[in-house]
Amino acid sequence: MVQKAKVQAGLDPGAPLRSLGMSLSGGDQKDAIDHLITVMKERFPGLSQHYFITTDAIGAMATASDRGGVVLISGTGSNCKLVNPDGSQVGCGGWGHLMGDEGSAFWVAHLAVKTVFDAKDNLVAPPHDVTRVREAMEEYFEVSDLMGMLPHLYRNFQKSFFAGFCKKVAEAAEAGDALSRYVFARAGRVLAEHVVAVLPAAQEPLLSGDLGLPVLCVGSVWKSWSLLKPGFTEVMDTAELKGRFRGYSLLILQQSSALGGARLAAQSLGASIHMDYAANAKVFHHRSFSGDS
Amino acid sequence: MVQKAKVQAGLDPGAPLRSLGMSLSGGDQKDAIDHLITVMKERFPGLSQHYFITTDAIGAMATASDRGGVVLISGTGSNCKLVNPDGSQVGCGGWGHLMGDEGSAFWVAHLAVKTVFDAKDNLVAPPHDVTRVREAMEEYFEVSDLMGMLPHLYRNFQKSFFAGFCKKVAEAAEAGDALSRYVFARAGRVLAEHVVAVLPAAQEPLLSGDLGLPVLCVGSVWKSWSLLKPGFTEVMDTAELKGRFRGYSLLILQQSSALGGARLAAQSLGASIHMDYAANAKVFHHRSFSGDS
Repeated sequence: MVQKAKVQAGLDPGAPLRSLGMSLSGGDQKDAIDHLITVMKERFPGLSQHYFITTDAIGAMATASDRGGVVLISGTGSNCKLVNPDGSQVGCGGWGHLMGDEGSAFWVAHLAVKTVFDAKDNLVAPPHDVTRVREAMEEYFEVSDLMGMLPHLYRNFQKSFFAGFCKKVAEAAEAGDALSRYVFARAGRVLAEHVVAVLPAAQEPLLSGDLGLPVLCVGSVWKSWSLLKPGFTEVMDTAELKGRFRGYSLLILQQSSALGGARLAAQSLGASIHMDYAANAKVFHHRSFSGDS
Repeated sequence: MVQKAKVQAGLDPGAPLRSLGMSLSGGDQKDAIDHLITVMKERFPGLSQHYFITTDAIGAMATASDRGGVVLISGTGSNCKLVNPDGSQVGCGGWGHLMGDEGSAFWVAHLAVKTVFDAKDNLVAPPHDVTRVREAMEEYFEVSDLMGMLPHLYRNFQKSFFAGFCKKVAEAAEAGDALSRYVFARAGRVLAEHVVAVLPAAQEPLLSGDLGLPVLCVGSVWKSWSLLKPGFTEVMDTAELKGRFRGYSLLILQQSSALGGARLAAQSLGASIHMDYAANAKVFHHRSFSGDS
């Protein structure tokens, strides 16, 4: 892919890049990253002189700002990172579907399916009728009963396929299904709880700008912001933090987070790439607490 | 194993059994069981003339009683089955660690570890100090931080090894650790909720005996009954069911549930094996609601 990108950019594919920046999910797992770089150097010796690999969260943040903020990822998985102006970081989540991923597409899909299972088992009364979600589940997974779900959960488990059911839940929610709307509101709640979790580590300049705390929202679940909003705003509105937290803005990238990866790769060698941050990300929701608290 | 058992029993290993009964976890997955029988017939043509395979739950129940009751399994996984006197069954749970297993060893281990993660992330305040559980986790999984847990959850995931951490949580609970005791009480609650879930399907004779509803408890987590008890009894005491539910007894097997499998295998051919049910299971907890409700 990098060699193809060189050609598309009109560069000589035989000439190594000065530095290759990558913004990858799992980019903080040192052993895996060291191994990845070693293999790339071996197999493509002329690819790049230097390498800089960071997480998807940090790459996204570097695309939107050089002054820090919060990155809140909700795609197949979920993660939250607060980056302070001095570069220090605090995280919440990002532990994968067996230990976290709250508010992600996988989590939404799982909560919807689990609600159907618990209702059928009479273990937990569902907050709303499960019929619409059960029908969507039977259609998406091509099953006729709960037993049919087991291969999707174990023998043939594919996280991304399972998480893909989130889109069907979103469609049901858009069509007015109460349980689907409830599941998305729950996702909004728990995503906001990730922001609240990292908030105490925020340095003053992050909180005192015109935007309030900037929260960069990354991942496809944010396409359903209107469904997440009831739960998200409810939790954020109750996070007072002794007056320091005066408001927040949700931003979405207008450019690939690979841009931030490239900027950080340059920066790691002492060079700088000019970025138009205002054009790279736009605010889609703003809330100020100054008026009413 | 069956051929060895024939020899140990003094039988001719070349002579086929009349009927081989097996009581297996997953014994209700028809395709898998049909495949298993086919392979056994092919590879060991002289093993048995007939086969009868049922679940671990039904085999256990057939060991303890021929009049039905509830089987509540909590081993590596969990499951609950109510068997009526007329043979009809209603289940709750048994969906594996991704969709159920509540109150199992895996679930206890997971809840303990998740509480440590959430406390570290500031996502959820732990109900009690996590120090003791975190130390036990670091020792059992041989990790020095949360990141080190990821291979245990994904790349090298082994359900039975992960569930084995439950024993360490039990030891911490026995030594007085408040969080460990809380986790086990939560397990007791959710196990009782499985019984409450199947209770409405109980036919009158199951509820009106001297023991009240017989609940056969299977699996190694029941060794920690004293830790499960606070949560279990609290939930059961609130399950009134309009006066029909007048009490219950918890029983534990004194014999292998293979006995029940053998009995059912004989029964499936119209034969019967005499069982001393009173010797096969003993009551370890009894609660009557008649006095105070």
